[in-house]
Amino acid sequence: MVRFFVSPQEFSGDELYLVGENAQHAKVLRLKAGEEVLVCDGQGQECICKIVDAQPSEVVLEVLERRESQTEAKVRVSVYMAFPKADKLEHVIQKATELGACEIVAFPSARCVSKPDEKSLKKKLERWQKIASSAAEQSGRGCIPEVLVLPSFQAVLERAAQADKALMFYENEQAVTLRMALEAGEYRTVSLLTGPEGGLEVSEVEKARAAGLQVCTLGKRILRCETAPLCALSAVMYASGEF
Amino acid sequence: MVRFFVSPQEFSGDELYLVGENAQHAKVLRLKAGEEVLVCDGQGQECICKIVDAQPSEVVLEVLERRESQTEAKVRVSVYMAFPKADKLEHVIQKATELGACEIVAFPSARCVSKPDEKSLKKKLERWQKIASSAAEQSGRGCIPEVLVLPSFQAVLERAAQADKALMFYENEQAVTLRMALEAGEYRTVSLLTGPEGGLEVSEVEKARAAGLQVCTLGKRILRCETAPLCALSAVMYASGEF
Repeated sequence: MVRFFVSPQEFSGDELYLVGENAQHAKVLRLKAGEEVLVCDGQGQECICKIVDAQPSEVVLEVLERRESQTEAKVRVSVYMAFPKADKLEHVIQKATELGACEIVAFPSARCVSKPDEKSLKKKLERWQKIASSAAEQSGRGCIPEVLVLPSFQAVLERAAQADKALMFYENEQAVTLRMALEAGEYRTVSLLTGPEGGLEVSEVEKARAAGLQVCTLGKRILRCETAPLCALSAVMYASGEF
Repeated sequence: MVRFFVSPQEFSGDELYLVGENAQHAKVLRLKAGEEVLVCDGQGQECICKIVDAQPSEVVLEVLERRESQTEAKVRVSVYMAFPKADKLEHVIQKATELGACEIVAFPSARCVSKPDEKSLKKKLERWQKIASSAAEQSGRGCIPEVLVLPSFQAVLERAAQADKALMFYENEQAVTLRMALEAGEYRTVSLLTGPEGGLEVSEVEKARAAGLQVCTLGKRILRCETAPLCALSAVMYASGEF
């Protein structure tokens, strides 16, 4: 079934409406009266709807059933990624959304080569959020992950540490595996923190430990900065019983 | 330690030589006599070497220790991917190499939009193999995964089915998870088969079952064709105790 995201405000009542980009999309797909579509509020609620009237500028929908999204992961995983170069962050946002992350948080760290300035940040955040929305639609998510930028490494540690499992991946860690970290006790929320191209500095790893994060390895091979978060996210989804 | 790959023929004797691109690379890194480097044969053997003499065209190395590679995965995973569009295959080759795959096999399937013709294939294979070599070097692999192209879907099924776990991922499969497939018995070799952008056809899934492959799900979200193999590979590496 085709999936549309509307704002939570547009989501109430027995009749829903697709307007703007959604109406355009419905037109491109040549949806007609009588067909069924799925409308999501992007926050985990969805409606199965029947098209009552399909006009180019507005599609009128009758709500057949309201329910919780069927496709969200049981575990809420936040992906914290140090700013990488160029389009790697966009890649991670798209893939992490497909893989079921609940939010993607970018932040500056000591060896980051690329840090967007204040001025360009607002525009970039809009673009990043759009990538997440589009990936959520295509992959059949019930929630659109939020893309955030935090101003400091310390702020990231404090926020990440609040999860049931707060994990930092570091190439020089050899003793503690992701498996050890995950198998030690139950969890419903997970933070996964990875460094930039040049890696994390020892002092940053120490700060993370002090803030309560567990430092783990992703194995003996060195993963690129855009590969590590997606590898870890895939493994957490597997470990928590998603597939 | 910096890592160089040489051919198995260049790998014997108490003295080894870096020539051509390897010598150039050593020059760029400004390696000097007395420094140590790691030389790999790309097939799982490696030497710790001391630089005796570093010239722009040739670096002479003394072998200090020969050993098996320390960074190869215990499980041999083959990634079988239906030809995707554009540069997605290159992306998967690079990432699958980082993640520890032992080979990447591309093949045609019914809904493939892109199939390289015979003429361009040789050149493309060279390029793909180069991507694997370069990713193997950067990620610290002891083996360079081989990149293969098989001419038919049936040939792929027969080859993939020889692994201890031969798995096909299909979006309409709901009952059998990757976990169920992996937890049913020991394995040392794994085949992971995924479809193109448009997905696999029902008839292809049936042929795969008939050939002895197990059809599994990667969860409730629909993964892009370039995300699915890397998600599955990450999960298999996690499940087999790599991290």
